[in-house]
Amino acid sequence: MKPLYVGLIGQKFMGRAHSNALRQVSRFFELPAEPVMHTVAGRDAEELDRFARNWGWKATTTNWRDLAANPQIDLVDIATPNHVHAEQAIAMLEAGKHVACEKPLAGTLDDARRMRDAARKAKKQKTFVWYNYRRCPALAFAWKLIREKRIGRIYHVRAQYLQSWGGPDTPLLWRFKKGDAGSGAHGDLNAHIVDMARFLTGDEVTEIHGAVSRTFIKERTLPGTKKKGKSTVDDAVLFLASFKGGAVASFEASRLAAPHQNANSIEINGEKGSLRFEFENMNVLSFHDASDGAREGGWRRIMCTSAGNHPYAANWWPDAHVIGYEHGFTNMYADVLRVLGRKKPEIPLPDFADAYETQRVLEAAMIAAKERRAVKLTSVR
Amino acid sequence: MKPLYVGLIGQKFMGRAHSNALRQVSRFFELPAEPVMHTVAGRDAEELDRFARNWGWKATTTNWRDLAANPQIDLVDIATPNHVHAEQAIAMLEAGKHVACEKPLAGTLDDARRMRDAARKAKKQKTFVWYNYRRCPALAFAWKLIREKRIGRIYHVRAQYLQSWGGPDTPLLWRFKKGDAGSGAHGDLNAHIVDMARFLTGDEVTEIHGAVSRTFIKERTLPGTKKKGKSTVDDAVLFLASFKGGAVASFEASRLAAPHQNANSIEINGEKGSLRFEFENMNVLSFHDASDGAREGGWRRIMCTSAGNHPYAANWWPDAHVIGYEHGFTNMYADVLRVLGRKKPEIPLPDFADAYETQRVLEAAMIAAKERRAVKLTSVR
Amino acid sequence: MKPLYVGLIGQKFMGRAHSNALRQVSRFFELPAEPVMHTVAGRDAEELDRFARNWGWKATTTNWRDLAANPQIDLVDIATPNHVHAEQAIAMLEAGKHVACEKPLAGTLDDARRMRDAARKAKKQKTFVWYNYRRCPALAFAWKLIREKRIGRIYHVRAQYLQSWGGPDTPLLWRFKKGDAGSGAHGDLNAHIVDMARFLTGDEVTEIHGAVSRTFIKERTLPGTKKKGKSTVDDAVLFLASFKGGAVASFEASRLAAPHQNANSIEINGEKGSLRFEFENMNVLSFHDASDGAREGGWRRIMCTSAGNHPYAANWWPDAHVIGYEHGFTNMYADVLRVLGRKKPEIPLPDFADAYETQRVLEAAMIAAKERRAVKLTSVR
Amino acid sequence: MKPLYVGLIGQKFMGRAHSNALRQVSRFFELPAEPVMHTVAGRDAEELDRFARNWGWKATTTNWRDLAANPQIDLVDIATPNHVHAEQAIAMLEAGKHVACEKPLAGTLDDARRMRDAARKAKKQKTFVWYNYRRCPALAFAWKLIREKRIGRIYHVRAQYLQSWGGPDTPLLWRFKKGDAGSGAHGDLNAHIVDMARFLTGDEVTEIHGAVSRTFIKERTLPGTKKKGKSTVDDAVLFLASFKGGAVASFEASRLAAPHQNANSIEINGEKGSLRFEFENMNVLSFHDASDGAREGGWRRIMCTSAGNHPYAANWWPDAHVIGYEHGFTNMYADVLRVLGRKKPEIPLPDFADAYETQRVLEAAMIAAKERRAVKLTSVR
Repeated sequence: MKPLYVGLIGQKFMGRAHSNALRQVSRFFELPAEPVMHTVAGRDAEELDRFARNWGWKATTTNWRDLAANPQIDLVDIATPNHVHAEQAIAMLEAGKHVACEKPLAGTLDDARRMRDAARKAKKQKTFVWYNYRRCPALAFAWKLIREKRIGRIYHVRAQYLQSWGGPDTPLLWRFKKGDAGSGAHGDLNAHIVDMARFLTGDEVTEIHGAVSRTFIKERTLPGTKKKGKSTVDDAVLFLASFKGGAVASFEASRLAAPHQNANSIEINGEKGSLRFEFENMNVLSFHDASDGAREGGWRRIMCTSAGNHPYAANWWPDAHVIGYEHGFTNMYADVLRVLGRKKPEIPLPDFADAYETQRVLEAAMIAAKERRAVKLTSVR
Repeated sequence: MKPLYVGLIGQKFMGRAHSNALRQVSRFFELPAEPVMHTVAGRDAEELDRFARNWGWKATTTNWRDLAANPQIDLVDIATPNHVHAEQAIAMLEAGKHVACEKPLAGTLDDARRMRDAARKAKKQKTFVWYNYRRCPALAFAWKLIREKRIGRIYHVRAQYLQSWGGPDTPLLWRFKKGDAGSGAHGDLNAHIVDMARFLTGDEVTEIHGAVSRTFIKERTLPGTKKKGKSTVDDAVLFLASFKGGAVASFEASRLAAPHQNANSIEINGEKGSLRFEFENMNVLSFHDASDGAREGGWRRIMCTSAGNHPYAANWWPDAHVIGYEHGFTNMYADVLRVLGRKKPEIPLPDFADAYETQRVLEAAMIAAKERRAVKLTSVR
Repeated sequence: MKPLYVGLIGQKFMGRAHSNALRQVSRFFELPAEPVMHTVAGRDAEELDRFARNWGWKATTTNWRDLAANPQIDLVDIATPNHVHAEQAIAMLEAGKHVACEKPLAGTLDDARRMRDAARKAKKQKTFVWYNYRRCPALAFAWKLIREKRIGRIYHVRAQYLQSWGGPDTPLLWRFKKGDAGSGAHGDLNAHIVDMARFLTGDEVTEIHGAVSRTFIKERTLPGTKKKGKSTVDDAVLFLASFKGGAVASFEASRLAAPHQNANSIEINGEKGSLRFEFENMNVLSFHDASDGAREGGWRRIMCTSAGNHPYAANWWPDAHVIGYEHGFTNMYADVLRVLGRKKPEIPLPDFADAYETQRVLEAAMIAAKERRAVKLTSVR
Repeated sequence: MKPLYVGLIGQKFMGRAHSNALRQVSRFFELPAEPVMHTVAGRDAEELDRFARNWGWKATTTNWRDLAANPQIDLVDIATPNHVHAEQAIAMLEAGKHVACEKPLAGTLDDARRMRDAARKAKKQKTFVWYNYRRCPALAFAWKLIREKRIGRIYHVRAQYLQSWGGPDTPLLWRFKKGDAGSGAHGDLNAHIVDMARFLTGDEVTEIHGAVSRTFIKERTLPGTKKKGKSTVDDAVLFLASFKGGAVASFEASRLAAPHQNANSIEINGEKGSLRFEFENMNVLSFHDASDGAREGGWRRIMCTSAGNHPYAANWWPDAHVIGYEHGFTNMYADVLRVLGRKKPEIPLPDFADAYETQRVLEAAMIAAKERRAVKLTSVR
C-alpha cells in the first residue's frame, strides 16, 4: 500500500478531530493508500509540540507555508478559522497539493470564489471540504434512499441546527467578533445544514424568500474582565428558500435554543416517502415509505449502525453497537483516501466548487436579511 | 342554575364538534349557566333533522337568520365556512346575541375588520373565536408557566402545522378553491399556530421577514369525473416573523408533509426555560427549566392530564387517563359559559379583536409572499 | 331502532365512565339498539340523585336488587368493588338480565368460578367484562394484525402497568385493605395486562415460573388522623409465565414506579413482526414488520386514530384528531349493543368464561409468590 | 510517565475493541502510566500477524503462556471465550501479572470461584473485569446521582438486554453450543445487566423468585451444510429477584426480540427519583427528580456527553458531540491505568470478587429455571 503524506494546519478542536480520524482510518478501513501524519503547522510552538506528540505527527512547524514547500507532502488538511482558508488553500493548490479544507469554505464569498477558481485551475489535484455530517451512517443512508427514488418528488426540506452555549453569561469570545469569525451561527451552523440539504436533495437553491438575522445578546463581558464589549455577529439566522425542483425549505441556526446542545436535524417530505435525521441520536434514521399505505404507514426507526448494507457500518462494530461524532471524520478520511487512490467513495465528497454553492446560499440569505427582500440566487455569484 | 340558550349554524365537522362539547360540558364542569341546545341552522333540511335528533337540538331551521330573530337565544355559535362568518356574526351581534365564531375569524381581512368593529359596538355582548388548541391541557399549562416567568425573555418561537391529506390523489374538493375556502393551509392551519404563538407569548408580531406560498399540486381531478381542474389555493405556506419583545419566529403549514397527519406543534426557547407542545401527543408538555443547570437539565416530559394543578385535568379522569381532541372544545365551552355567567375563565378566551390580530399576521404573510419582501405589521390594518 | 334498557350499579369513577359511554355511544355509532339509561343503583341517596341528574338516569334506587326485579331492564352494568361482583352478577343473571361487569371478574377465584357457572346456565343471556383497553384503537388494530398473521410465532410478551400514586404519603385508603380490595396492584393492574396479553395472542398461560409480591410501604396514615395502620395488600406484583404456544411472558404491576402515572404497556416480539402499545400515548401503535428487512426495518409509529381502516377511528374525528381514555368505554358499549342486537362486534368482547381464565392466571401468580415455586395452570381451577 | 506493558490474549471482536481502547486512551486522557502494546497471543498465526500490524502490537505469540513467562509484561488483558478464562487468568495471576478479563468472569461458577480465590491470594496484583457499559457516560452519571442520594430508597429495578440476531435462519454457530459458550443469552447478556444493576444500586441480590430459560429454535443449520444440529443453549432467560435493600428486580435477555438489536436498558424507580438508561441512545440519561413535584415533574432527558461535570465527557468532544460503544472501553482503560498508577478511578471498577457475585446471581437464576422454584442466594456459593 502506497503511503500518502499529510500535512495539517491547525491544532485546536478541528485539528484534534482530524488527527484522530487520520490515526484511526486505516485501522478500520482497507484503503488504497496509507496516510502518514507528516507535519503539523500551528502558531504556539509549545502547544504544537505537545499536540504532535500526542497524535503522532512526525514534525511541526510554526510557518504553515513550510507545508507548501515540502515536496513530500501530498495532501494538506486545513483546520483553521474561516478567514485564513483562502490564503492557505490557494497557496497549497499552487504548490501542487491536494487540499481538504474545513467548512465553511471561506469567510467571504469573494474568498470562496477565489478558492473555487484556484481549484479549477489545479487540474491534477483534488479538493475536499469537511462537511463531516454527510458521513454519519444515517445521513449517508438517507442519501442512498433518495438516489433509489424512495422519496420521489420533494415537497419540503426542514433543517435546523440548534445550540445553546451562547447565553448572556458566555463572554465575548472570538466567535462573537465579525472580524475573526465572519459570522455567528450562520456560517458555523447554517453552513452544515445547507450542505446537508443540497447533498441529500441533489438540488440547488434558486431563491431566498426572506431571512432574519438576530443578535439577542448585544453586549458581552470581555474575558477576564468586568468590562462589556459589543457582539458583532448573529446569534441566530433563519431563512426560507426554494429549490429548483420545486421544494420549499426552511433553515434555522441558533446559539440560544436551550436545551438543544448540538441539535442538527433535517427532515425531507416527498411524494413517495419522508426522511428525518437528528444528530443527537445520529445512529438512527427515521424513514416513512408511503407505499406502506394509510393503514400501516408511519415513521420507521432504522438503526443504521448495523448490518443490512448500511454505509460505513460494517467497518465498525456489531449491530447497534453505536458510533459517534468523531466517526464522521474517520469515514470521510476513508473516502478521501479512496478518491486519492482512484477508488470510488461510498458517497460523494464535497469539493471547493460544491462548497462554493453552499456559500452562495449563505450569502444570499445575508442579503435577504439585510435588504428585507427576496433574493434570487442568480444574482449572487 | 340559569339556562343559556344556544343556537348553532353549521352541521358538518365543526357543528358536530361543538354539539358534542355542548352536550358534555355540564357533565364535567360546575358552571354558572346551563347551556340549552335550542336551534340548529343548516342548509340541507333532511340531514339537519338527523343531525338535530342525534345531538339533541330542540329545533332546526334552514334560514340562519331565524336565530337572530328568536329573542330566547342568548348565544349563537357559528360553525360555517370562513367566507360567511362576517355576514352571520354581524347579524347576530346586531340582534343582541353573544357570538362564538369558528376560526379563522373571516375569509378576508376586510371581513375580519368589520367583525371586530361590530363586536366593539355591541358593548353588552361577548364574542369568542374557536381557537380550540389553547385548551389542550398541556398548552394551557404552558401559558401558565410563561405567566409565572418560567421562560423569561423569549428568543425563539418555532411553530408548524403539518398534515398530509393533500396528496396528488386527493380530488378537487371545495377546500382547494379560493372562492370557497379563502386560502389553503394558510388560513386553515397557520391561523391556529399564529394564535397559539400570540397566546403563549402574550406578544404581537411586528414584522414578516419573508414568506413563501406554494401550490405543489396545480391540477386535481374533479370529484366524480376524470377531468382535471385547477387548485387555486396554497398547499403550504411558510413565513418568518419578529415579535415586539424581540423573539424571532418561524411558521409553517402544509397539507403535503407525510407521515404527519395532524402535527400541530410549537416550541419556545427563552432565557430561563423552554417549552414544546405536539398535538399528536397532546396530554404531554415538554418543559426545560434552565435552573436545573448544565449537569441535570434537559427536556422534562410532563403529563398534564393529571393532578398537580394542571388546567382542566381535574374535571376529567384520574392521572394520565388521557383525553383527546374533542376535550379542547368542551374545555372552551366551559370557559365561555363561565364568562357569560360573569366568572373567570381558566385561561384567556380569544375574542374578535384578538382574532383580528391573528388575521393581520396571516394577511401580512400573504403580502410578503406575493411581493417578495418583508412587511411591517403597521402597514396592514 | 329498538330501545335497550340499562340499569347501572355504582356511582363512583367507573359509574361515571360507563354513564358517559352510554350517553355518547349512539351519537357516534349506528347501532341496532338504542340504550336507555333506566335506573342507577347506589348507596348514598343524595349523591345518587345528583349523579342521576347529571348523567341522565331516569330513576334511582338504593337497593340494587330492584334492578333484578324490574322486568323492563335488559342489561345490568355492574361498576362496584370486586368483592360484591359475584352476588350482584349472579342475581342479575338469575333474573334474566344481560350483565356487563367491571374487571377483575371477582375478588376471589371461587367467586369468579361461580359467576362463570351462572353465566353458563343463563343460556339466553350475554355477559361482558369491562376490559376497556382492548378497545383503544391501537390495541384493537394490534389484534387485527396478529389475526392477519403479521407477527407469526410469538416469542415474547412483555407487559407492565406502572403507576405512582402509592407513595409513602398516600393514606390508608380502602384500596390498601385486603378485605375491601382483595389485592393491591395485582387485581387492579395485572388483571388488565393479563387480559391484554391473552386477547392479543389468542393463547393461554400454561405455567407461572415464579412471582414476587411486595408491600413496600407497610404502614400508612389513617385518613384524617395521625395514627398509622397496616397496609394489607401488595404495592407491586411481578411474575413470569409461559403460553401454550411457547411464548415466554413477563408481567409487572406497581403503584410505586414514578414518574409513570398510567403506564400500561405491552410488547410482543414474534418471528414475522413485533408490536408495542403504550397507553399514555394510546393513539399510536408501534409495529415492526420483519419483511421490511435488515436494511430498512425498524419500529413504525402508526397513528391509529386515522383513516386507513383502523378499528373505531372512523366513528370519531378526522385523521390524528386523537381520542382518549373514555373512548375505550364508548367503543366497548358500541360492541356490547351490537352483540345484543345480533350483530358482530369490531373485535371480540370478553365474557365471564373468558375473564375467569384471566382470574386463574392472577390466582396462580399469587400461589407462586406465596409458595416460592412454579405453578402449572392445570392445578388452578 | 511510566510505561505499562500490556499483553493481550484474543484477536476477535473483543481483542479488537480492547486494542482500539489501548491505542486511544492516552490521546484523550492524562494518565499516570502510558500503556505499551507489547504482545498479543492468538491461535491463528497468520491472522494474528495482520491483527498485530493493524493495531500496533509489537510482538505476537500463538502460546498464550508466553505472556506469563515474559517478565516485562505488567498487565494481561484476556479477551477469549468464557471457558478458558479461569485457566488463563489464574496462570497470569500466579505469574504476578495484573489481569483484566472479559465478562462474564467464567463459564462455570466453579471456575469463577477459583478465579476469585486466585485473585485474593495475589495480593500485590489488581484484577478487572470488562463490564464496559458501566462507563457509558450516562450510566456513570446515573451511578453518581444514586451516590448523591437522588433516588433514595429503591423500589424497582427493571433491566433488559434485547437482541435479534438469533432468528431461525442463523446457523448453528459456536455461540449455540453449550460446550463452547457455557450458555446463550444468559451469560452473554444477563451478565451485563446484572452487573449494571448491582453497580448502580450498590446492593446485592438475596433471592431469585423464579426464572425461565427458553430455546425457541431447537435446531439450526450446520454452517456450510444443509444438515441440522441441536442448539444446546438458551435463546432467552428471564428472572425475578429481590435485593437486600428491598427492591424487586426483573431481568430479561433475548436473542429473538426484533427489532431490538442491542437494546441494553435499565430503569430504577425509587422514593426520591428514577433513572432510565437505554444503550441504543447511550449519550442520554432519563432522570426523574421527585422534588420537581406533581405539577412539573417527569422524565428529564439529560445529554450526558456534555459539560456540566458529566463523567468522562470532558475528555472527548464538545457538548452533545456524541460518543459511542467503543468509548466505554477507552474510558475503562483510563480507569484501569489510573488504578495501576495509584490514582482514583472516575467510578468503581469491577474486580474478580465483584464479578463472582454477578456469577452467583446468574447461577441461582439457572437453578431456579431448572428446579422450578425460588432460590436464596445464600445457597449458591
